[in-house]
Formats: sequence, C-alpha cells, structure tokens
Amino acid sequence: MSIIGKMQDWPLTVNKVIEHAKLNHGHRKVISRSVEGPIVETTYAEIHDRAKQVSNALIADGIQMTDRVATLAWNTGRHLETWYGAMGIGAVLHTINPRLHPEQIAWIANDAEDKILFVDLTFVPIIEKIQGLLKTIEKIVIYCDDAHMPNTTLTNAVAYETYIAGQSLDVVWGDFDENTPCGLCYTSGTTGNPKGVLYTHRSNVLHTFITGMADALGVSVFDKVLPVVPMFHANAWGLAFTCPVVGADMIMPGAQMDGASIYELLTKYKVTMSAAVPTVWMMLLQHMEANDLELPELDRVVIGGSAVPERILRAFKEKYDVDVAHAWGMTETSPLGTIGQLTPEIQSMGWDKHVEYKLKQGRMPFGVELKITDDDGNDIPRDGKTSGHLMVRGCAVVDTYFKGEGGNGGTVLDENGFFDTGDVANIDEYGFMQITDRAKDVIKSGGEWISSIDIENIAVGHPKVANAAAIGIYHPKWDERPLLVIQLVEGESATKEEILAQLEGKIAKWWTPDDVAFVDSIPLGATGKINKLALRDQFKDYKLPTA
Amino acid sequence: MSIIGKMQDWPLTVNKVIEHAKLNHGHRKVISRSVEGPIVETTYAEIHDRAKQVSNALIADGIQMTDRVATLAWNTGRHLETWYGAMGIGAVLHTINPRLHPEQIAWIANDAEDKILFVDLTFVPIIEKIQGLLKTIEKIVIYCDDAHMPNTTLTNAVAYETYIAGQSLDVVWGDFDENTPCGLCYTSGTTGNPKGVLYTHRSNVLHTFITGMADALGVSVFDKVLPVVPMFHANAWGLAFTCPVVGADMIMPGAQMDGASIYELLTKYKVTMSAAVPTVWMMLLQHMEANDLELPELDRVVIGGSAVPERILRAFKEKYDVDVAHAWGMTETSPLGTIGQLTPEIQSMGWDKHVEYKLKQGRMPFGVELKITDDDGNDIPRDGKTSGHLMVRGCAVVDTYFKGEGGNGGTVLDENGFFDTGDVANIDEYGFMQITDRAKDVIKSGGEWISSIDIENIAVGHPKVANAAAIGIYHPKWDERPLLVIQLVEGESATKEEILAQLEGKIAKWWTPDDVAFVDSIPLGATGKINKLALRDQFKDYKLPTA
Repeated sequence: MSIIGKMQDWPLTVNKVIEHAKLNHGHRKVISRSVEGPIVETTYAEIHDRAKQVSNALIADGIQMTDRVATLAWNTGRHLETWYGAMGIGAVLHTINPRLHPEQIAWIANDAEDKILFVDLTFVPIIEKIQGLLKTIEKIVIYCDDAHMPNTTLTNAVAYETYIAGQSLDVVWGDFDENTPCGLCYTSGTTGNPKGVLYTHRSNVLHTFITGMADALGVSVFDKVLPVVPMFHANAWGLAFTCPVVGADMIMPGAQMDGASIYELLTKYKVTMSAAVPTVWMMLLQHMEANDLELPELDRVVIGGSAVPERILRAFKEKYDVDVAHAWGMTETSPLGTIGQLTPEIQSMGWDKHVEYKLKQGRMPFGVELKITDDDGNDIPRDGKTSGHLMVRGCAVVDTYFKGEGGNGGTVLDENGFFDTGDVANIDEYGFMQITDRAKDVIKSGGEWISSIDIENIAVGHPKVANAAAIGIYHPKWDERPLLVIQLVEGESATKEEILAQLEGKIAKWWTPDDVAFVDSIPLGATGKINKLALRDQFKDYKLPTA
Repeated sequence: MSIIGKMQDWPLTVNKVIEHAKLNHGHRKVISRSVEGPIVETTYAEIHDRAKQVSNALIADGIQMTDRVATLAWNTGRHLETWYGAMGIGAVLHTINPRLHPEQIAWIANDAEDKILFVDLTFVPIIEKIQGLLKTIEKIVIYCDDAHMPNTTLTNAVAYETYIAGQSLDVVWGDFDENTPCGLCYTSGTTGNPKGVLYTHRSNVLHTFITGMADALGVSVFDKVLPVVPMFHANAWGLAFTCPVVGADMIMPGAQMDGASIYELLTKYKVTMSAAVPTVWMMLLQHMEANDLELPELDRVVIGGSAVPERILRAFKEKYDVDVAHAWGMTETSPLGTIGQLTPEIQSMGWDKHVEYKLKQGRMPFGVELKITDDDGNDIPRDGKTSGHLMVRGCAVVDTYFKGEGGNGGTVLDENGFFDTGDVANIDEYGFMQITDRAKDVIKSGGEWISSIDIENIAVGHPKVANAAAIGIYHPKWDERPLLVIQLVEGESATKEEILAQLEGKIAKWWTPDDVAFVDSIPLGATGKINKLALRDQFKDYKLPTA
C-alpha cells in the first residue's frame, strides 16, 4: 500500500493482561482454597510478580519459546502464576485434565513433549504411577513448600516455593509475534487419540475481549468471580484472562467442589458471579436445600459443559434470585461459542418463555460466526426448527490441531473456513442456537434427521425409565429408523406400548421409534454420557419389526 | 516456529461488524432525524444492504483500495451506510468536520486527495463556496432524493438515492489485510496544518471491543443509544461500531442538537444511553429545567470533549437519576483513552466523593496504556498529585500521521512507543487520570509545574470575573511566574487583591500569580477555548513587578 500513516503496532499478547491487572488493579484479590488446607489470599500484583519468578525459574531450566510446560492442577493462585509465567516468555502452558486415565495422561504428556510438569499434591500419586511412561518431562514441580513436600518416589521433584524462591522479577515478557502459541489443551475424543488445540496469544486476548462484552460474561471490577470450571478446561471459560483484565476478584476453589465447600466460598467472599458445569450446581442446590441456606450476594451464574436441567435454572431464579446464562463452547472455540443472554423481545415474554430460551445454548457474540448446514454444505435458514451441522468460524476457533492431528492434511476446516463442531443444531429468529444431537448420533430416516436427544429426553420423563438411548438401525426403505433402548428403574417392568405412549404428541409422528428394546444397563462413557458407539455395536445385527 | 497447530485467521475488518449486525440484530433500528425534516426509521439489515449498494456505486466510479471517500455530514443512517459501504471495499472513509473554516475544509480535502464527497443539504452552500479550491473531488453526492435536490452551482452533483438506486447487493467485503486503513480524521491543530489520523480496520475493531467491555461503555442489546457526538469526531466515540456489534438501537440526531430536539428523541425513542460534549448537555438541562420535564428512560450519559462542569454532573444524577461517566480521548486514540467508571473503593465513599472522582478524566480500559513522565522521560508515580506529560500507547493509538505529517521522520512516538498527548496530567491510586493542563500552557516556576487550568477554574468562580487565563511570564530567578489575566463581567470593577483573595487557601502559596492584568476581552479560538498563543503574544513584553 502506498498510503503513509498507521496506528500503533500493539501485539495482542497475554502478558499485557496481567501487566494491566498489576498496574490498574494491583490490590485486587486472588483467593485460593489451597490443596494443603488453608484459604490463601494474594493479589494481582503478587500473582504478576511471582509469575515473573516462575519465568526466570523456567528460563534457568532451559525453557525456550514454544517449549511446553504442563500443569496437572486445580484452580489456585499458584496455577495462575505458572500460567502467566510460562506464557509471558513464549512457552506453551499445557493444562492436563487430571480426570483422564493415568495412561492417557502419560500419552498426552508425551505427545505434547512436555518438559516440566507442575502438579498439585492431590495428583502426585498419579504421576508416581506413570513416571516410567513419561518420556520428555525433566522436572516435576509440586505445588507446596518444603514443609509440605510429600514422601515421593518421584525423582527430580521440587517444591514450588523452593523452585521460585530467590528468582529475580527481572525478565522480558511478550515482545514476540501475537500469533505465538501460548496454551495447549487436549480434547477428550471418544474415538481416536486426543487432539490438542494450540491457543495463541492473539486468540486468547481476542477471546478475552469477547467474553468481557456486556452481553457476554460482562465481568466488571465490581464482580467477585468464582470459577469452578477448571483452568484445564479451555482457560476456565476465559475467566483466567477476563477477571484480571477488568480487575474482578477471583475466588479459586482448589480441590474442593462439593456443595458445602462451594457454598462457603460463595458466602464468605460475597461472590457475585460463578461458572460451572451442571453437576456442581446440583450439589450446591442440594446442600442449600438440605440446610435451608440463602445466597444474598450471588447475582448470576454461567452454566456450560452439558445441557442445563430446567430444575437448576428454575431453582436458581425462583428460590435464590440468581440469573442463569447457559453457555456453549468447546475446547476448539477457546471456549465461548454462545451465551444465553436474553434479548428485549424475549425479555418481554415473561419468565416461562425465558426458561424456554435459557434452556437453549444461547446466541453468538461478535467474534463468533455460527451457521447450520445440511449434508451438502448448504446453509439452513434460522427458523428455530430445522437442524443441521453446527459450523463455527471466528477469531478464537481452531484452524489446525496440534501436530496436524485429526484432519485432512492437518486442517479441520471446510472450504469457507468453518470448523465442524460435530454437533447438530438449529438457530432461531433471535439468534438462539439449540443443540439437538451429535452428528454421529443423529438418525437419518428417508433423508430427514431425527434427533436422538429429543427422543431420549422425553423417554426419561417416564417414571419407570432409568435411562434411554435412541439409535439408528438399518431399514431397507428408510436407510435408518429409530430404535429406543430402555433401561428400566430397578424392579419395574413396562411394555413397548407404554413407553411409546410417553412420546405421543411430543414428537413428530414419523419420529416414533420402530421398536423398543429393554436392557439391564445402558453403557456409559468415562464422563457419564451414554456410550452410543458401544450401544450401536451391541445392536449392530438387530432387525427392526418394520424392516 | 517449528510447532504445528494454529487458530483461525480471522482478520479484524469492520465489514464483520455490520455483517454480524445484519445476521444477529437485523431488525434492530437505526432512527434518524433527516436533514429534510421527517424522522426516518431503518434497520441494521437495511443499513447493511444499502451499504452494499454504496460499495457498488463507488466501484462503478473507480474507487479502489485505500482511495479516500469523504463525508461532510451529520449523524444519520445514510452516513452510516456510506461508512460501511466505503470501508467494506477497502476505501478510506474521510469524515470532515463541517465546523471548520471553508478554506480549511478545502485544504483538508485536497491533502486527503478525496475523490468523492458525500454531503448533507446543510453543507451544500459551503461546498459551493469552495468548489474552485477542490482539486481532487470528482463527484459530489448529496444526501437526499431527486425531489429534494437543491438548486446548486455544483457540477457533478447527484442525489444520494439516485446514486445508489439499482445498484446490486452483490459485492465482496473484507478479504484483505486487517491493517488496511479504513478511516481518516484530521485533528484541528492550534499550530501548523491539521494532521490526519489513519484508522485501520484492526484498530477500529479492537477499539470496538474496548468500548464494549462492561466497565467501558458497556453497551448492550437492551440499550437504545443516542450518539450526539458526531461521526466526524473520531467515530462518534466508537458508537458507530459498538452499537451494531451488540445490536443496540441507534437514534441519530441529524442536524438538530438543541435542547428541545434532543429531548424529543430521548423521550420518544426511550433512549437509555447517550454521548455528547458538555455544551449539548447544558442546552438539554436548560430546556428541561425551563419546561419542568423528566427523563424516565435515560440511564447514563458519557460526556467528553472537554471537562465536565460539576453542575451538569450533579443535575443529571440528583434531579434525573442519570449516571454520568466522563470520558477522555482524542482523535489520535480512536478516541477512548479513559472513562470514569467508579471502582468499589470509590463507590463506598458516598456521592460527594463520587463527584470528585467523576470530575476527573477516568481510568484506562485494557488496550490503553497511560503513563505520566517528567521532562526527562522518567515515570512519575501514581500519587494523584504529581503531574507530568500524559503519554499513551495501545492497540488503537496513532503511530504515524497521514503522509507522515507532524513528527520526526514521520513518527510521533517516544522510544518506548508512547504517543505524547500534549496534555499534562496525574494518575491516582485508583487509576483515575486527571488532566491539569496542556503541556504548552503549563507554567514552569523554578523547575516545578504550576497548572494554569487550576488557577483559571478557581478565578472564574469569583462573581465579578467573566473569564480568566493564567500564563507564564519570564522571571529572572524562577524562569517563569504566573500572570493572571482577567476579563471582568461588564460593568464590574475589581482590584488585584480582590482577585488574588479568591485563590487563597485553594492553591499552594507558591502558585499565587505574581500579578493580575485586567483586559477588555480574553482572545478565544474557533472552538471557544482561550487562545493562549495570542494571549502570550499580547503579553510577551510584560514585566512582572517581582522581576
């Protein structure tokens, strides 16, 4: 371009996040329930300074740009220090999910070629068990001081406080290209090996802006935020960046996520906003109901990870006046894809309609583009009814998995640059997206799609049904027709007609399963979801009565 | 980098702003008081589609990437269409300030090499007057339809509606580097030629994110926003981007900014948020007080452009329950630099303290870095007292003026990449910045700085004083000492002692002016501010009694 004149080159690197927090919100608090026991209070200024010490300790150990530094850790201030300390010098912070099988943890650490591992006391036994499998980890830093060091079989283990003690605060952060990677998070694929998403400084900073918008998470300096959602799940839904940027206090739950522990933090530190998966909220609500407790300060919660049960949504609002926003995202979307903030039109419809919309996955903020396509890649209109493949494009969406895993020639995008989420969904006139199935679970009958999830959700409403799964079975005329697999409540018995009557009038007639099969138990995966792969295998020779 | 894996390349181009608005907030309104008279309602979908037509009309006229397209126009939907139509195809939208002298308008249009000019009916006489001076403008598009075309001496003039009529909606937007320039806005320098700031797509999108944060403008889909601040003043403080991004309705005041007109729009369209300079609010408040009116819907106003008088701040909150946030910025900062959103500490201090902080310029959002330096470039601590040069760095701050004007070798930054604002300011412990002077107006006495503005503000509080100006006069011992120049209210008389008594106890003793000079009138510049350059010239041979 021949035109002279420009704006400043201000690379979007995440060190600026914690530098801004130190300078403008230095005295704001990061409060952690430590794994050792006591609750520890620190500030953004201290987090910043200790992160600088982490950087120098890493540099002393030879860590260079793009080297992977792993954590196997709960949400605590120390985890946050490691986070910014590694990212600041251009290393890649690899958060490992401790809930994986130990062998899978070893596989992931080897695939990532992690050099140093920071680990909470809780997980030392896991690492002891797999230490022989770890091929690249040279040092293990345990989050504690010398006094709390466990008796361990680990060689090369050092207490975190000793590791950073005496390190200088003098280190250059940033000063590299904003497209430098800074984070690595593996998805737990149900098939094939886990795939790593390599976040960049730019994608994380842009994601921080997206989440900070008033109609997204809308976090303010007046907020005290409790991220129950772990930092090893896609950046604690961005809160590990968004809170310091606006100067919101962070209250970190450490290892204890039971109802009583979460309630203690919520009330003791006057938390205004929190984020977690439904099971955490279920535990909290049960604890509160059992003990007749209240939540005067809590203003709103973000719920994601899986669909929000209506009971939770209603209990929060109707009993405790807490607003619920359902969020949807995935590791591949950093993770915020949609959030269920209402619009003026829906607002005017009254609470029961709010519930209806709030049970959907929400609408897309600027920076995220969603579209729904049919099998041929054609756009499907936003009618709130017709479902299709949910495709996503945006400034914090994966392009290529780590090491090119999982895609054609390393890329996972369609010709328009959209990533296929693997979900089946529709979008309504207000932009609210609703997931109706996983693409691989959808039942394709005569070229039309039947949502297995819809059928299952209605079926489990029958008092005799403990669990239900709908799968597609081969049919000579329709290609596939639904089979409904039912696990009854122990001691109950039911007929096929009884079960199908439950669906009547609630789904289109042609969605009605061609048969019902009763089983002793429906197979579940590691995360508690129905293992449809196993189920389909179990029924692979099944013949429908209509075939 | 040898590491494989990346996030999507999603260039930050402003066409995505209006595309997002059409897709997600297509039915939200842009309501304009047209220059012809009636109030016109349109939507973001229509703005988007008509902007596409503008693009094709421009392309038909040979407009290419980085070519300048000028507007001399009020805030209206048509201006917004031109805005996105030009930017979408990579042209540069040059907003000209119609309040400049006609000759200066011609100079700017020539300097920018504008090819096409879009102009409101109001300003046709100005263009007729200077048409002989315009060297590069090939076509003039007048914002009206054929029926409203004025009788004009302009050659090559066409009605806007005719210009875009029949143009296709089919045109590719974006698809170029995010550092492509998209906007040009000249500063009205008091010395030298006006300097152009060349906004890029990236800087404008990032600025949109900054303004959209909850603690900045915090605009939501529930807002109905009235930007009184003109689009020719640094993007209407970003609202021309921020509103469509979140789906807030825009209510555009067109040519009428008097109290009654603004009040009509505020109430008729239930405006929740507005932004303007203090004089607009003064007119509105006078109109409301005179007619005993109320403002039930208005929730908050942003005030910038010059210091907010305490009277306005208090009237808004105490009489109408409207929250005021003082914002500071400049053309060179896109413009948001700071905004006076309180913090929890200040919030707890009570209303009178709020006023004290709200009269400061505010605190910096993420994306803006401010520092205060002494004459040697050393950082000054954030003590809320010590003033220094206000320096700014960030993702939407100027690096190099258009055509390299005004700097050393085309650059206007210090060695750390900070832009010198020319203001003198301090920053307090809560991050609140307060401008105390212009650097060229500060009085340097014995190496210490005396704020001319502080002295003036107190002096004008004297009932006999119509206007006051403090300037530095040569002093053999102290280099400079303050002279207070006073213009008395007509018919009044006062002594030097009477005036100085007004300052006693309100400023440090050594700040007390060495003399008071009474004049018939203090010279003012085009924008109504004191012309200190002229005043210093007038008093260049003045001898202080203390010298």
